[in-house]
Amino acid sequence: MISVVILGTGNLAQHLCQTFSKTDSIQLIQVYGRNQGNLQWFSSYTKLCSEPKDIANADVYLIAVSDQAIEKVSGHLLDKKGIVAHTSGATPMNVLSAENRGVFYPLQTFTKGKSVDFDSIPICLEAQNEEGLEVLQDLAQAISSNVYLINTEQRRQLHLAAVFTNNFTNYLYGIGEAICKRNKISFDLLKPLIQETSNKIMSLQPKEAQTGPARRGDEKSMNQHLSLMSDHTEQEIYRLLSEAIKTEYEKEL
Amino acid sequence: MISVVILGTGNLAQHLCQTFSKTDSIQLIQVYGRNQGNLQWFSSYTKLCSEPKDIANADVYLIAVSDQAIEKVSGHLLDKKGIVAHTSGATPMNVLSAENRGVFYPLQTFTKGKSVDFDSIPICLEAQNEEGLEVLQDLAQAISSNVYLINTEQRRQLHLAAVFTNNFTNYLYGIGEAICKRNKISFDLLKPLIQETSNKIMSLQPKEAQTGPARRGDEKSMNQHLSLMSDHTEQEIYRLLSEAIKTEYEKEL
Repeated sequence: MISVVILGTGNLAQHLCQTFSKTDSIQLIQVYGRNQGNLQWFSSYTKLCSEPKDIANADVYLIAVSDQAIEKVSGHLLDKKGIVAHTSGATPMNVLSAENRGVFYPLQTFTKGKSVDFDSIPICLEAQNEEGLEVLQDLAQAISSNVYLINTEQRRQLHLAAVFTNNFTNYLYGIGEAICKRNKISFDLLKPLIQETSNKIMSLQPKEAQTGPARRGDEKSMNQHLSLMSDHTEQEIYRLLSEAIKTEYEKEL
Repeated sequence: MISVVILGTGNLAQHLCQTFSKTDSIQLIQVYGRNQGNLQWFSSYTKLCSEPKDIANADVYLIAVSDQAIEKVSGHLLDKKGIVAHTSGATPMNVLSAENRGVFYPLQTFTKGKSVDFDSIPICLEAQNEEGLEVLQDLAQAISSNVYLINTEQRRQLHLAAVFTNNFTNYLYGIGEAICKRNKISFDLLKPLIQETSNKIMSLQPKEAQTGPARRGDEKSMNQHLSLMSDHTEQEIYRLLSEAIKTEYEKEL
């Protein structure tokens, strides 16, 4: 049985709380947060705590707060023996002041109210010492089949890769939606295409899956597309991404 | 029973052939193509034809060739009574010379050898006359539950939107993969995130689903990310997309 305290009351804290609560080998003994309103959400799952001095003793302290607040929150745990781990992709392990420190980074995008199946979510671990790593591994393996050892530098790069494949991709979906709206077309028409685009790369490499005017070097279609947009930002994005694709595939000829 | 001749032997022609062959109300009577090698693929499904003068009479002629070849292929069908329709997103209906003309555009990305379920694929129809439209509607509804009337201008814009949400998105996946490779991380780590990103917009608007440093206006994280890339093109794409997201969400404040 691994005992856990979660520090933080946001999106990720909620998802972790729900998952830990239904996992037999994990005992979520407390959730710590300063915002009483947010903290109440957790009351049906475990004990609540809003004063640093009242934080319980546990095997693992998971800090699930915004990147800027991690260092400060970790300061409340200086006298604790359990491993103190943050859950951030972009933050080095060494901002934590505890000697027994680590990282427990679930690589996924979490939406409030939308449940996720942790079993398929990659959990990236790092730890200052071997003993701490073993505890984090036990915790991660109890909820996920995809546990990886990832150091601070790799995690930073992974987080960057996630910005391209999640944040920027979502922004492109938004441009697609805007184009539909302007032309009185339902965005639903694009949804099967969006699904298939993401499904394809489960079995094909993105490079093999690439199609479209830029891939073919089809200047006529690209110029026509550019003339269809009046939004300057959309044009710039179209130009830059087309140029990048064209250059990449020209290299191969 | 609707009789169909497919003109073309590529990816889309193959997928249409397979779907028509298993649909009771459709009779695929012939596939026309100049490339004997490609044409052979269809021999187990229907009759083959490689001479324009041998093209059979049918209710519908579906031209599934590259955009540049549509006009020429449609020239082989001047004496036919059935409706002549192309399958291209970017091509106006009026490049077809037949009086009874139309468009039958399935909005999806097709991969050789990877079967697709046509039922969920939106099929965008346009026709010169009412009678032709009815035939195309019967054909489309026989294989798909998502049939839309879309005119030439809307279809052009849809095709543009598809470039953003399919071609460009796939290119961003490729950048994610390249970052992983450089840092000795398996691309598999990003796949659940990519899946969830595309799943999210089935229920949330892209604008609501947007997250990340640019969305938060988090300059520190953005600058850190920029310093992690040595590839100039990646940096440019990061900068342009981040700036676009930042500007969009600043507008709302």
